[in-house]
Amino acid sequence: MSGEEKGVHGRRTGRRPGDARSRELILDAARTSFAATGYAATTIRGVATAAGVDPALVHYFFGTKDGLFAAVMELPLNPSQLVEDIVAGDVAGLGERLARRFLEVWDDPVTGPPLTGLIRGAASHAPSADLLREFIGREMLVRIAASAGRPDAVLRANLCAAQLMGTALLRYVLRVEPLASTGAGDLLGWLGPTLQRYLTADTPERPVG
Amino acid sequence: MSGEEKGVHGRRTGRRPGDARSRELILDAARTSFAATGYAATTIRGVATAAGVDPALVHYFFGTKDGLFAAVMELPLNPSQLVEDIVAGDVAGLGERLARRFLEVWDDPVTGPPLTGLIRGAASHAPSADLLREFIGREMLVRIAASAGRPDAVLRANLCAAQLMGTALLRYVLRVEPLASTGAGDLLGWLGPTLQRYLTADTPERPVG
Repeated sequence: MSGEEKGVHGRRTGRRPGDARSRELILDAARTSFAATGYAATTIRGVATAAGVDPALVHYFFGTKDGLFAAVMELPLNPSQLVEDIVAGDVAGLGERLARRFLEVWDDPVTGPPLTGLIRGAASHAPSADLLREFIGREMLVRIAASAGRPDAVLRANLCAAQLMGTALLRYVLRVEPLASTGAGDLLGWLGPTLQRYLTADTPERPVG
Repeated sequence: MSGEEKGVHGRRTGRRPGDARSRELILDAARTSFAATGYAATTIRGVATAAGVDPALVHYFFGTKDGLFAAVMELPLNPSQLVEDIVAGDVAGLGERLARRFLEVWDDPVTGPPLTGLIRGAASHAPSADLLREFIGREMLVRIAASAGRPDAVLRANLCAAQLMGTALLRYVLRVEPLASTGAGDLLGWLGPTLQRYLTADTPERPVG
């Protein structure tokens, strides 16, 4: 090994020797705060204070709070970007874009496998999985549902989550056939309209009986 | 305690003293066979042979194979009866009847709680949960889907299972709000049409792109 400074993943960086240490201090403080108080109550300022650094350094390393959260949870994706991609465009295509992005992220050999822990952990109430599920529910699906401008956005987000988590459980965790080997294109035609209805349809009448 | 013979649950019965023992031998043999070879490969005759009893005694105690399975798994319901109730009637009401029975069984304080183990165990690949899931999938949902007479009945059953298992996970295991406290009547209006479409709609066109 040369004497050059390397980042936390062993890559050569142009950063000062203290950077990697500061980054770890921030991640430790953030991990503690998210676990203790949840996503909503955690603030960049609070994490910076606990880590003994300036809030600007947290922004420098992680951007926004959800970037910090993604780093703590080792999420293989950028939540804000994903939500923006889905919300952008015609409301008539919202359900299909959500279904498409969902299948892309889970089918991807890099981003998919880490997510199966979300499903396994969620069913056993693992604290980190609870936190991640709350984040995906409140920060992602509720924002997507709210973008459609219909009443009961949180219930609509829950219904989408139920369809998507159930699909993930059967397709990616339990690998139930033929669902597990059906192409994403074929599944889109089934799932897209379901999500579209949950996100944008009028609240249904209660069935008689 | 009096000297009267009591059944396995301590209730007084008119059976001979050997009955409770035979019943336990049958359940043990069935438990072993279901676990070793799965639901489909298990036969009443094979279980009777392993238990050293006449097949007629298995039928006497448990009726059909799925009754035996329900007893082994301590299911709080009769699977055949449930499927018959859902399949009976107009195909146009199939999805709503499936959603209604699903919510009734899970919302019931007697039959609901034992089923949460199915969801927790399924996510962690517990063998008994795998077996129960296969049973519910193949013996119940596929029969329901097949009754609609459309192609791809097994994929359609998988899609229904995804929506229902996801709903059970969020509503009954994780108790996510507002889904957990929304009335069954209101949920029926959301879930019924989803299941109806999965069971009876034409196979969708693949979306462009």
